Amino acid sequence: MTVSVAVIGAGYWGPNLARNFAGSSEWNLAAICDLDLDRAEALSARFGGVRVATDLADVLADPTIDAVAIATPARTHHAVALQAIAAGKHVVVEKPIADSSERAHEMVDAAHAAGVVLMTDHTYCYTPAVRKIRDLIAAGELGDILFVDSVRINLGLIQPDVDVFWDLAPHDLSIIDFVLPGGLRPIGVGALGADPLGAGKACIGYLTLPLPSGAIAHAHVNWLSPTKVRQMIIGGSRRTLVWDDLNPQQRISVYDRGVDLQTQALDSLERRVATVSYRLGDTWAPALSEREALDAMVSEFAAAILEGREAHTDGDAGLRVLAVLEAASRSLARGGDLSVLETAEPELAGGAR
Amino acid sequence: MTVSVAVIGAGYWGPNLARNFAGSSEWNLAAICDLDLDRAEALSARFGGVRVATDLADVLADPTIDAVAIATPARTHHAVALQAIAAGKHVVVEKPIADSSERAHEMVDAAHAAGVVLMTDHTYCYTPAVRKIRDLIAAGELGDILFVDSVRINLGLIQPDVDVFWDLAPHDLSIIDFVLPGGLRPIGVGALGADPLGAGKACIGYLTLPLPSGAIAHAHVNWLSPTKVRQMIIGGSRRTLVWDDLNPQQRISVYDRGVDLQTQALDSLERRVATVSYRLGDTWAPALSEREALDAMVSEFAAAILEGREAHTDGDAGLRVLAVLEAASRSLARGGDLSVLETAEPELAGGAR
Amino acid sequence: MTVSVAVIGAGYWGPNLARNFAGSSEWNLAAICDLDLDRAEALSARFGGVRVATDLADVLADPTIDAVAIATPARTHHAVALQAIAAGKHVVVEKPIADSSERAHEMVDAAHAAGVVLMTDHTYCYTPAVRKIRDLIAAGELGDILFVDSVRINLGLIQPDVDVFWDLAPHDLSIIDFVLPGGLRPIGVGALGADPLGAGKACIGYLTLPLPSGAIAHAHVNWLSPTKVRQMIIGGSRRTLVWDDLNPQQRISVYDRGVDLQTQALDSLERRVATVSYRLGDTWAPALSEREALDAMVSEFAAAILEGREAHTDGDAGLRVLAVLEAASRSLARGGDLSVLETAEPELAGGAR
Amino acid sequence: MTVSVAVIGAGYWGPNLARNFAGSSEWNLAAICDLDLDRAEALSARFGGVRVATDLADVLADPTIDAVAIATPARTHHAVALQAIAAGKHVVVEKPIADSSERAHEMVDAAHAAGVVLMTDHTYCYTPAVRKIRDLIAAGELGDILFVDSVRINLGLIQPDVDVFWDLAPHDLSIIDFVLPGGLRPIGVGALGADPLGAGKACIGYLTLPLPSGAIAHAHVNWLSPTKVRQMIIGGSRRTLVWDDLNPQQRISVYDRGVDLQTQALDSLERRVATVSYRLGDTWAPALSEREALDAMVSEFAAAILEGREAHTDGDAGLRVLAVLEAASRSLARGGDLSVLETAEPELAGGAR
Repeated sequence: MTVSVAVIGAGYWGPNLARNFAGSSEWNLAAICDLDLDRAEALSARFGGVRVATDLADVLADPTIDAVAIATPARTHHAVALQAIAAGKHVVVEKPIADSSERAHEMVDAAHAAGVVLMTDHTYCYTPAVRKIRDLIAAGELGDILFVDSVRINLGLIQPDVDVFWDLAPHDLSIIDFVLPGGLRPIGVGALGADPLGAGKACIGYLTLPLPSGAIAHAHVNWLSPTKVRQMIIGGSRRTLVWDDLNPQQRISVYDRGVDLQTQALDSLERRVATVSYRLGDTWAPALSEREALDAMVSEFAAAILEGREAHTDGDAGLRVLAVLEAASRSLARGGDLSVLETAEPELAGGAR
Repeated sequence: MTVSVAVIGAGYWGPNLARNFAGSSEWNLAAICDLDLDRAEALSARFGGVRVATDLADVLADPTIDAVAIATPARTHHAVALQAIAAGKHVVVEKPIADSSERAHEMVDAAHAAGVVLMTDHTYCYTPAVRKIRDLIAAGELGDILFVDSVRINLGLIQPDVDVFWDLAPHDLSIIDFVLPGGLRPIGVGALGADPLGAGKACIGYLTLPLPSGAIAHAHVNWLSPTKVRQMIIGGSRRTLVWDDLNPQQRISVYDRGVDLQTQALDSLERRVATVSYRLGDTWAPALSEREALDAMVSEFAAAILEGREAHTDGDAGLRVLAVLEAASRSLARGGDLSVLETAEPELAGGAR
Repeated sequence: MTVSVAVIGAGYWGPNLARNFAGSSEWNLAAICDLDLDRAEALSARFGGVRVATDLADVLADPTIDAVAIATPARTHHAVALQAIAAGKHVVVEKPIADSSERAHEMVDAAHAAGVVLMTDHTYCYTPAVRKIRDLIAAGELGDILFVDSVRINLGLIQPDVDVFWDLAPHDLSIIDFVLPGGLRPIGVGALGADPLGAGKACIGYLTLPLPSGAIAHAHVNWLSPTKVRQMIIGGSRRTLVWDDLNPQQRISVYDRGVDLQTQALDSLERRVATVSYRLGDTWAPALSEREALDAMVSEFAAAILEGREAHTDGDAGLRVLAVLEAASRSLARGGDLSVLETAEPELAGGAR
Repeated sequence: MTVSVAVIGAGYWGPNLARNFAGSSEWNLAAICDLDLDRAEALSARFGGVRVATDLADVLADPTIDAVAIATPARTHHAVALQAIAAGKHVVVEKPIADSSERAHEMVDAAHAAGVVLMTDHTYCYTPAVRKIRDLIAAGELGDILFVDSVRINLGLIQPDVDVFWDLAPHDLSIIDFVLPGGLRPIGVGALGADPLGAGKACIGYLTLPLPSGAIAHAHVNWLSPTKVRQMIIGGSRRTLVWDDLNPQQRISVYDRGVDLQTQALDSLERRVATVSYRLGDTWAPALSEREALDAMVSEFAAAILEGREAHTDGDAGLRVLAVLEAASRSLARGGDLSVLETAEPELAGGAR
């Protein structure tokens, strides 16, 4: 059984979405919608001339279309998604899910009320490496998560409208959200950045996220590094995993090394005395499949729709990432003070997912 | 011309000092002093039976001894150093220079008043790699320093009496202090740590140091990483340097890559518009000598004495590192809020060194 | 001024050639010729519908076509090239230049007699890394070449019709031929291989090429290695270069390290006594451009035509590589005995190029 | 139960042997023998003043001494060992076991006849990495061995009396002999070298060893490489192992990757048609212990004596390595022609070990 989708927005990301929907046996690419008719038609031509539209309403009025994929500018996500949800369409939306977490909440609530799938396209989560990490953690292979340290640095394009946090950290945050059981729910966000070139925005950023369990997550994002690093260390009570995305021959290493702490006794001053032992076991590097991430993403979108369930990177995931980025901006403005997440919303306050 | 030195303390570090003083043509190892006579004699036997003493006063009363090297526990540094200074001896003291910056100040002031050299044994600064980094920065090869990112992680011994900041960060801080022109003088210190094992102290730590120039220094110290990393990136306006201490074949790489920003015009909203260009030039890895760090340290101590000047890692350097560690502890206790350094002291407030 | 080219053969490699000719400002892609009309037309459609032909004679009869690019099976190279040369066309031909060095000789001779350019498409030679290596050697940066060690191993497809030497070594050999001043002119070829799986052909191969200067070239080619290595070390009397094609951040490293040997005296037995000293100087990694190799190849083809000179990878280069491969097969059949190259031909016997 | 040993030769290697015998609970270091009394006494002083001797006969006449460790120059091994064997002592001898395989044979035969242990000190075989490799192969983890590729290159000291084969290849050969079931028994040895500096001996060497099973072993030894490589790839029918001795964090990697070949049918020309499939499984890096190699070697010597069995690196092992080196020299002299091993001796001709 296939589902039909319209791609809304034929700019930078839309063609990638269209290509993967068109190439999937689970999907029927039914329409391409863009305000710019020429752009829509040029894209359509690459897929056998699927229907084009310049008016969103036309697409939403078509009862044969089950879903829309929104690849328009972030500030329009809210309006487009709400219209699509109102028309009963399932929605996948580019990251960031919206331009404010308030608006993202409205989208999440609307989708829940309408009973449609609202998915955030956190593409990186659908790479074979990240899926493997998620599976290993879910299977308990790492034990309890003790820390996550992510480094994403490179000589990067200084973006005109966003700082390095908003440009790079969404990758780290969406991945951490995806692999941690229960998602990324820090008790606060500390952000310190620097703009040593006078670019008018942070070009170097450090993000620290204390987690409720006592664990900590940290991300270093940097546009000014001459060397490229894409590495995440996930320390667990049983094993520790290192993901080096630039080492295609061994992207994921699982180390059976670690510190075991036993609190055994009180010393003469009545203090707990910890006994420490070390494990220096084997290292294991699982084989990874080679599926394209975006292909796996559209497949998950189809599965969520057909099975009537939330997608793995659902609207709440998009909202959690957005809320952390907003908190990071507040912390940055206050000179790094820990910014407590506004937890009035049940999605963020609740422990269960 | 040789100078004579007594090593005070024959425990863990004293033997290393004694061996290097004994092996240096610039020094005469004159005495070894330890409360434990057996330990002193055992050490003395390895160097032809130099004089031993259990009473510090005996050593200080000897007019043929020019200098003392203090390798006793940190809480005794203050008392031993002040007596030695009062006796007109030059002093090199193990790190940390004292157990509080207040006491370290007294030591610095006393040495200045007495006109003797007070040096901190920041051994790492005397490795060929760190000396080369200092020279390159001093020669302007990197331009203005934009950021320093240091990572020092490993499966480490959980120390009984100090947290990971006090155990590992002194290395990063003393190195940064040594290579930055003017030394390490942050406008604040932000520290966030985690104790996910329940060891009773931070086992993972992130230290963020905004610098007056708009640059930022950051250190990641971690006892729980299964992989060992010892890497420092120093980004400059002209070039960027990466020091990978675990790559003996190429410890230092200097990248002629970077971002050049020219502020050229105002846009229609009267905002400054930055034009960005990228340099993607050559990489250069300087050859390094193979001298033992401690040998270079004792040589610098002799040179400072004979030339009547401050040592490269002087008492102020020890004090600056100590003050940052104290500020880090305060920040940690407050949940990561930036801890402003107490700058009443002229050494820290002043720009000149 | 542009030159016009017809691509002969629309199978595996033809489309890559067509794309690069079409994208070059120096070329006019004039025709595509394939026995299979559908295939020719499908390829033509991607470039605005250039003329198609199924008969080579039609293309060669067209006086507006200056050159042909031959991407047909190797056994047909000789016939197609001779016809094209006879028609006064310049020719670039896929590697191997022909299916025997005897036939390749005829092609080279014919092109010389006709005064047209005959070029071999040794694509790898036009990568930025290989061009840089050639330039560095030509400028004397490495001094005299002492040895070349090439490793090209991977878990590879076992080819149905060729062994690992013919599959992989053409890359190594054409590169060595390209970068060595005067080209690759070994005094012999030793080849040892193994077929431990019983595949019916060598899957592991070692090729040793003594050079007239006393230097040695060696290549390890292997289909059975679980790890991928693409590395060439070129040792020179002044410096040594390491090319690691899988390290995009530092593909080329030039080491100012080496052994200097001075023969200073005779010992008591009247033997020359060598004094050895070591240089342990800096390492330097030149920045490389990012131009596509095939684009540079078609540009060189145009330049050779317009300037009336031999191309960098000319017919002789193709012939030298082919002759070494044939000699390797002979050596392999004789159990590794050094196979002397047949040097009756002046191109191979002569020292000058 | 401890055994008593005398160390013969107090020069370069003797002190290492003495230190490990002295530090072992299995051994009693009973005497040190050297023609130079001062040198013997200086060494003795480091181990509590054990007995010294300048006359070998004195040592051999002592009935309390069970074994001797010979660390004298290679040309004396034969004479010293035969005397010791005649005196009923067990013998461990530095590599090379003798200065000719003929003499080595006499030593092996004499030891067999006398019923004493004759061991070759192939130290590298007792490193944790090599022992693990041996164990993995013995347990069938790699399946049948298909190829061994060893690279041992560095900027090395040009030795006055031996070429690069005799200086470096003994390490590779003794390791291959140790890990291959049945030891290293090639059907021939091909050696090609180069002396591009005019040092009077090969400074670069390639050694190719076809094995009876159809497998191949190859070693690249080189004194002129600016980079240091110590890597061995051992390809097996089930898995392939890579040993990178310069990567302390992951010295051994076992790849469950490979090519599977099934010969399924005959094609129309009655040729066997192979079907190929690829495994791209996990990688596994076993943890290694940290025992010093020489300590494990002296322990194995004791065990062989006490258990009345051959040592793991016995006299035959030393002989096999020596015979390959001699064959390599013959091949080198003949320009690389495969040098067939003289297999009159049953140890080399026989398949069983």
